[in-house]
Parts: sequence; C-alpha cells; structure tokens
Amino acid sequence: MMDQITQPVLVVDEVRCRANIRMMLGKARDFGARLRPHFKTHQSLETGRWFREEGVDAIAVSSVSMARFFAADGWRDIMIAFPVNFREMEEINRLAGVTDLGLVVSCQHSAAMLPGKMSTPADVYLKIDVGSHRTGFDPDRPEELRLALDRLAEDAHLRIRGFIAHAGHTYQSDNRQQLLEVFSAGRQALLGLRESFSSVHAGLMVSWGDTPSCWLSDDLANLDELRPGNFVYFDTMQLDLGVCTRDELAVTVAAPVVALHPEREEVVVYAGAVHLSKEQGMGKNGKAHFGRVVFYDAQGRILWPGQDLFVERLSQEHGIIRMPREMIMDLRPGDLLGIVPVHSCLAADLLRETYVVRAGP
Amino acid sequence: MMDQITQPVLVVDEVRCRANIRMMLGKARDFGARLRPHFKTHQSLETGRWFREEGVDAIAVSSVSMARFFAADGWRDIMIAFPVNFREMEEINRLAGVTDLGLVVSCQHSAAMLPGKMSTPADVYLKIDVGSHRTGFDPDRPEELRLALDRLAEDAHLRIRGFIAHAGHTYQSDNRQQLLEVFSAGRQALLGLRESFSSVHAGLMVSWGDTPSCWLSDDLANLDELRPGNFVYFDTMQLDLGVCTRDELAVTVAAPVVALHPEREEVVVYAGAVHLSKEQGMGKNGKAHFGRVVFYDAQGRILWPGQDLFVERLSQEHGIIRMPREMIMDLRPGDLLGIVPVHSCLAADLLRETYVVRAGP
Repeated sequence: MMDQITQPVLVVDEVRCRANIRMMLGKARDFGARLRPHFKTHQSLETGRWFREEGVDAIAVSSVSMARFFAADGWRDIMIAFPVNFREMEEINRLAGVTDLGLVVSCQHSAAMLPGKMSTPADVYLKIDVGSHRTGFDPDRPEELRLALDRLAEDAHLRIRGFIAHAGHTYQSDNRQQLLEVFSAGRQALLGLRESFSSVHAGLMVSWGDTPSCWLSDDLANLDELRPGNFVYFDTMQLDLGVCTRDELAVTVAAPVVALHPEREEVVVYAGAVHLSKEQGMGKNGKAHFGRVVFYDAQGRILWPGQDLFVERLSQEHGIIRMPREMIMDLRPGDLLGIVPVHSCLAADLLRETYVVRAGP
Repeated sequence: MMDQITQPVLVVDEVRCRANIRMMLGKARDFGARLRPHFKTHQSLETGRWFREEGVDAIAVSSVSMARFFAADGWRDIMIAFPVNFREMEEINRLAGVTDLGLVVSCQHSAAMLPGKMSTPADVYLKIDVGSHRTGFDPDRPEELRLALDRLAEDAHLRIRGFIAHAGHTYQSDNRQQLLEVFSAGRQALLGLRESFSSVHAGLMVSWGDTPSCWLSDDLANLDELRPGNFVYFDTMQLDLGVCTRDELAVTVAAPVVALHPEREEVVVYAGAVHLSKEQGMGKNGKAHFGRVVFYDAQGRILWPGQDLFVERLSQEHGIIRMPREMIMDLRPGDLLGIVPVHSCLAADLLRETYVVRAGP
C-alpha cells in the first residue's frame, strides 16, 4: 500500500469521494437542480469516472484543454466555465462537433466578438459578477447585459442558455452565517436577472458555482444548475472555513521525510511549492502556512495528530514542518507524512497522478 | 511568431539566456571555480543544451526525477542538490551507474542511514546551513558534522566530496550591500569548515549556490564550485532585488486577454495560479502581486509600459490585471499580454513547454 509511494503524490480516498459525490448529487436532486460538477478540482479521469458511476453526465471545466481531455474520455456535455479564449476558436469549434459544448462570455467586448466565430452550434452562458469582482457582467447595469444578449442573438449558432455565477467571495467569509448571506444575496441578483430578461429571452436558466454555498446551504431552491467542484476532495481551506468535517476530507499529499532537525523542532519533507502550490492558509495563531500535517496508517487512513502541525515554509521541493522535538524523535528519514493541502485544486493540478486508497470515514 | 500562441506559455529569449550563461561561466572561470548550474530553474532539455553548447558539463538538480530526465539527455555529472530521499534508493542506485551522481546529506540522521544503501559508488556532499535555516548542518556545531563524516566514511561507495551551501536568505535582503554581507558571512563559515576538517578529510571542496551572490559579487574567490540556477531566466523577484537588469530578463509568460473591464480598470487574462504559481511579489506601494505586466512586439520582444502594471489577483486559470482605462481601450479579447513571473523557477515548472524567441537586449 503506502510502501509503494516514493515521491510526493496525491492520496485520494475513493470511499470519501464517492460519499461526497452522492451527498451533493442527492441535494441537487432534492432541489430539482442539475449537478454539473466542476472538474478543474481533480483533472483526473478516474475521479471523473466515479462521478459518472454515481449518475453525473454533465460537467464544467476551466479551459479548452480540460474540455478536450474529458471529451476524449466520453463526456458529452461540457461547459467551459471560463471566458472564451479567442485564440483557441479552432479547437473550440472542433470540440463543439464532438460534445455539447458550453461557452462563457463575461464582458461586452467578448459578446461583440463572438458572433460569426462558431461554425458548429454551441451553448452560450453569460457570466454574472455577483460580488467576487473577478469577471462578469454587473447585475446593476442590466443595459450592458441586454446589449450583449442582443449581439449574441444575432448568430443562430450561439444558443443563449442563461446566466452563471461563481461566488468566490464566500471564501472570504468569517463564519457560516456570513457565508450564507453572501450566497443568498448573489442568488437573489441572479434570479432577478432571469426574471427581468424572461420576456425577451425565453427559457433562460441560472447556474451557481462554489462549494461553500452548495454544501452548506439548506435552501438551494430556484437554481437550475449547481457547479461546485472542490467538494469531491475538500482541503484545509474548507476545513478551516467550517465547510467540511475531517471525515469528509478526501485528499492529502504524501510527503517523504528527508531531514530531521529536532534541535530547532523542524522536519524537512520532500513536498514543496511544485507539489503543494504556494497557496497560503492562516492558522489560529495568525501565522500563514502551506498545509496541515497528518499521519497515515498502513492503509493510507488519515490519523490526526493531537495538536495542530503546519508546513511553515516552502522552497521549490522542500517543505519545512514545525513539530515538537518528542514527535520528531519517533520519525526517521524515509518515513511518510501527510499534508492536507491548503487548496486541493492546485495540489491536484501539480500532482496529476493520484494514489487511490479506500479508507472511508 | 507570437500569433501561434493560443494558451499560456513560457516565452524564453534564447539570445538573453545565452548571454546570461556566458556571463556566469566567464565569471566562474575568472575565479577558478567550476560552474554547476542548477537546472531546477528551467527543467528544459533545450535550455540545458544551450548550457552544454556554451561549455557546461556538470549540473545540479533538485530531485531524482530531474536527474533521470537530464541523464537521459546525455548529462554525465549530476548532483541531486536535495537531501537524499531514502524511498528512491533503487532509482538512485540505477542512476549512479549511468552518470557521476552526487548525493546530499543534510542531517545526522540521514548520515547514519546512508552507509550500506549504495551498490554503486556516488559522490556525497554535506549540506551546511549558512543561515537560511531550511536544512543542513549547523556550522557552529562541528562535532555533529565530524560524526556525520565519520559515519559516511565507513562506506567505501560513498565518496565524500565536500560541503555545499545555498544562501536562500540573500533573497530577504533589503539592498545589495546587505545581500553581499550575507554572502560574505556564509562563505566565511563554509571556508572555515573546509579548513578545520582538511586534516581529517583531504581534498574537501566547497560549493556555493544562489543567483544573487554569484551574479552580484565581484569576489567569488576560494569557492571551488558555483551552483546558481535562476540567472539563466531571472524574474520579477531578481529585478526588484536589483540583481538583474531589464535587458537580462529572459522569460515572460504569454497570457491571452479574455475579458475587459474598463469600468473598474481591470483586464482578465488566461494565466492563473496553475501557470504563474501563487508566489507573491511586493510592489513599491506595499501591495502584494503575482507578476509584472509587459507588452510584446510581433517578434516577442518585451516592451515595458510607461508605468508599473501588476497581476493583482489570481484564480486557478484567471489573472486579474489592474490597468488604466485608456490602456484597456487599446486592447481586445484575444490579445496577448506578457507577465514577468515573480519566481521563474515555479512558472517554468508549471509551463513545461517553452516558446523560444530570439529578441536579445
């Protein structure tokens, strides 16, 4: 089992992933929404197949390359939930011929450029900025949205499907209540737009992304589609935000110990910025860190230490862990430690190969 | 030329790289030191071949995988400048059979474990902590070093070569003077160790890493080997530290524009955390950023804007650039912007494919 691991690798617990998928799928069905999970989190054919086996048939991705990758594995309903990249129109057209492809337009300049670029029909969604201010149309300037819709409607190859939003700012919430308020206000804005444009464009739907809202809210009513991604794996960020429990957490990075420095209470592992990413978390002590440290049993089950342990510093391949001297005395170079990444999507992107365990809760 | 670029890609200027290589090689020769460039920066066979063509035949890497990668391209003198990972002894032994392999031991626990593990001879270096406190032996505790040397000497397959240091803390310097003081103190510690152990272990050499010291110092005397890596490409960190000039900077990340938001003076590009890494730089305004923004001419030559422009925020694939409204009015979705990464080693790791231009200074 874990003995086979020689280098940093993403350890994925299939039992927990499938439980997370079933939970989210059940919730979507309860509210009559379609689950279109965001596959940018895992970028893994195997994890993708677990979704398929649980009944998912539509997905979101965040690049044309990812769309190609999953289309080649048989996925036939793929939304590229990223503003259309006009430098890839040739590949976008090719993909639209082999899968039901969804494109996203997030500013009026792109809306003006897209008509005439597709030789094959594709779905088009307008991205609405519900407050994260990353990109998208401002819901308080509906005249721009109207103009964009009118322009896109000129091209019969562009099937206008509706509005999508990603409330990335839920991640800045201090607590669950605040998080749910962010969700509630954003959904209200999205539903308001659907209402006000329904007379001009019939059948517009609304699609909502972000794991914290979808996982925590008890009320997902009136949304046609849910696009969370992170929930399949979760990570330190979600744990610390109170979104998931330790039993729902499904990934760690296995890190070989390469040096012991008990005299300064530090352990060096082979797992650096090129494995964990430099995404920073914040400990309760107000110190930035690059992941929580756990132990494994022989089957890869996570064993939580009795106290918080963090990766304090990172170089390209080195991770520096702060650990009490007496715990270090039990370690040897070559042992494996587990690191719960701060942001699992970035760790999964860096560690494309996954090592699957079946530990369960 | 640049028209062929469809996705984020590392744009490497061969003319500038070769000039940087020649400069560093000339300096090493002037001081009678061997240049063993660190190939973790580029991890590119093509960039590696430019080094070979300029006369380099020994390299450093930071993982067993990188050693395998470059050994397969004909490199025959490779130091794995990372604490030995005991989980990869099988591959380490195989590599020692096909190349002159150097291993690094950075704590007494590893020194105690290594004897008996090699079936093929390999060079061994002891890592000295000259102040960055990442890993390595404390030069102020020579008895530990003596013990480690004695243990390693028990195994005739382990050829003890000397001491290596990487002054990673030069990067925390506020100015050139401070940086050179860090270098000077570290070198002194290293030379002191060579002196004090010379009677017991004959022929010990000292090897020094880090681009700021090697590039800036006018006095590299008494060092047997130099292992800088970043100087071949440089980056925003080195620019802002005053190590390199704009004319020496040899890499950018080409980023397609995917949305324009002139109303809030922001441009969204396809270049996110999975292309640039989340390494943060610090602007003169005290605000963190993820890279400096430049323009390109048709041949990929860097055109510096009249004012500082930064990537202010990153998502997985999105980069958000702050830019004055009037500059945004000249852009269209699909245009290319250049981003000088904060840390080129991480960007190069993420963007393994390079797009080579020959612009020169």
